[in-house]
Amino acid sequence: MADFTNIKVDVLRKFTEDIFIKLGVPEEDAKITVDVLLAANRRGINSHGVARLKRYVGYIKDNKMTPKTELSIIKETPVSILASANNGIGQVAGYKTMNMVINKAKENGLCFATVKESNHYGIAGYYSMMALKYDLLGISLTNSAPLVLPTFGKQAILGTNPLSIAAPTKNERPFVLDMATSTVPRGKLEVYNRMGKQIPDAWATDEKGNPSTDAAKILDNMLNRKGGGLLPLGGAMEEMGSHKGYGLSAMVDILSGVLSGGAFGSIIYSNKQAAGVCHFFGAINPDIFTSKDEFKENMDKFIGIMRDSEKAEGRDKIYIAGEKEFSKEDEQEETVSISNKVVENLKEIGNDVGIEVKF
Amino acid sequence: MADFTNIKVDVLRKFTEDIFIKLGVPEEDAKITVDVLLAANRRGINSHGVARLKRYVGYIKDNKMTPKTELSIIKETPVSILASANNGIGQVAGYKTMNMVINKAKENGLCFATVKESNHYGIAGYYSMMALKYDLLGISLTNSAPLVLPTFGKQAILGTNPLSIAAPTKNERPFVLDMATSTVPRGKLEVYNRMGKQIPDAWATDEKGNPSTDAAKILDNMLNRKGGGLLPLGGAMEEMGSHKGYGLSAMVDILSGVLSGGAFGSIIYSNKQAAGVCHFFGAINPDIFTSKDEFKENMDKFIGIMRDSEKAEGRDKIYIAGEKEFSKEDEQEETVSISNKVVENLKEIGNDVGIEVKF
Repeated sequence: MADFTNIKVDVLRKFTEDIFIKLGVPEEDAKITVDVLLAANRRGINSHGVARLKRYVGYIKDNKMTPKTELSIIKETPVSILASANNGIGQVAGYKTMNMVINKAKENGLCFATVKESNHYGIAGYYSMMALKYDLLGISLTNSAPLVLPTFGKQAILGTNPLSIAAPTKNERPFVLDMATSTVPRGKLEVYNRMGKQIPDAWATDEKGNPSTDAAKILDNMLNRKGGGLLPLGGAMEEMGSHKGYGLSAMVDILSGVLSGGAFGSIIYSNKQAAGVCHFFGAINPDIFTSKDEFKENMDKFIGIMRDSEKAEGRDKIYIAGEKEFSKEDEQEETVSISNKVVENLKEIGNDVGIEVKF
Repeated sequence: MADFTNIKVDVLRKFTEDIFIKLGVPEEDAKITVDVLLAANRRGINSHGVARLKRYVGYIKDNKMTPKTELSIIKETPVSILASANNGIGQVAGYKTMNMVINKAKENGLCFATVKESNHYGIAGYYSMMALKYDLLGISLTNSAPLVLPTFGKQAILGTNPLSIAAPTKNERPFVLDMATSTVPRGKLEVYNRMGKQIPDAWATDEKGNPSTDAAKILDNMLNRKGGGLLPLGGAMEEMGSHKGYGLSAMVDILSGVLSGGAFGSIIYSNKQAAGVCHFFGAINPDIFTSKDEFKENMDKFIGIMRDSEKAEGRDKIYIAGEKEFSKEDEQEETVSISNKVVENLKEIGNDVGIEVKF
């Protein structure tokens, strides 16, 4: 593990917040944004953690993302919100919108929101999990940069469009599904590429749209827009359910992009001045259906059924959605493991804006 | 195609309705149930069409399903409904609940419902598509008989738990995603078995939980509860996204079974007197976010992006969710193609209850 450095969460938090503040991000917004990024690192989803800082700083410097997020409510009912992030920070827009969604759901049973003109918001699960402390079900979806092919296509016109749902429990850890609708995210190809390993052929295609195991070539094709891209969950073949992953990705885009009246499909990031990312959030109070208590007890029972069911040969554990991430989060409460390449990037960013740090 | 018989839809409709009526199902309910079954046949999803009649008749005769569906509303708000089907027919419960959901969504912007103590409701897409004629987004989920393994498991404790979302369009056919969260339904194994063909190893496992290509053995294991079962979308390996399909299946069960306070996981069908199937329905009026007109125009644009994107080598068409089913539905407007085995079953059922038919 010489490729990684262990860094105190507090130190990393302060450093990252200071960078955002230097770039004109209000302190409260900097805290929100960094909390979402560090939640990803702590949960072991490093692709969505401080590794993103370089890109975010670039967007702010190039005036593609405004440091002050002016979230405006365009329409609202007792159970819905349409907001625009006005090209501000995705995390700030997401956090503030999800808080409003939670308040309306507490009051009126449920609430759903769409947000347009936003940016990358980090891990989808951060927002769905915000609902948990109020014993609500939380939902969070977002569209994203076009990297994924439709079934039988060779042009990346859909995002990895993740979806997350979080359900409260009584004694168990909450159920937190947080998944990209592609088989894997691009970061996974980068990991295999660094290891010089072939990738499974359900992950991505070459420039002609044929499944390929050559990560280096695929990444180069994607970077230079030569064709090909990531495959939807299910891979390339209908026989394996490719059309289902493709359909799920489209569903996330419809609920985020089309429903908000914002950007969708290949339109996202096509405007050099604004990413146009859109989100969808929801919260449901179990009291309008069963009750909170019964819901949480039955969630424990449901989790027990899955966990205690018989294991396949050679397996000794069945995981529950979110379980691995919660273990990692516990493990990385005080210190997170960050790749040295990212550490170098962070130091460079610090130098650039005049903030020194010792990791 | 000597294995199939072409039957006039009208004849099949009348015959099937008459059977339900003979069994004590009220005429209106018989019409609803048959309409859902025939929609499946017309759309080419024969596993969910009149082939189910034999089982439905069996449930009614064994007093496991009541012919008169007394749908009761347990709780209700302006945007939500909790109902019990009181062990009636799933199609009747689904149709009536979705109509109430649509009315509340027209009035209050959106509405969600859960239904417990129900039965198999046919194709999920029937109910989501009911929202389309009002220019609403429709959502329909259901849990189902435990046939699917969790990732790393060998015991079938989850249903194929389908999810459907339907989105209205302007000039295009609507977007209708209607998918099981397993890689394939059991019916697909039966088809391969009849053809004597090996199945792909992402579909199901043997009794030890190892991926298998032997459909006959797997079907026998499933029937006799020897272990093994269908794999979630993504197959057996996390590398291929198995945990995502498993998570989606669990998500559907949480929203249907746990949220309604009904049965879930391996509890479904475990009570010999009642299946305990649960559904989840939703409708969203685009006017509370963007507008109906803008939504429908942008859906056309989104569909255009997907359809017109570059094709993979050897492919000449990119499909939109629901497109193949709509084509089939058009093709089978007057006549549906039914397997001879099902035709024989239908005739037997007819004989049993004293209804003669000539197909």
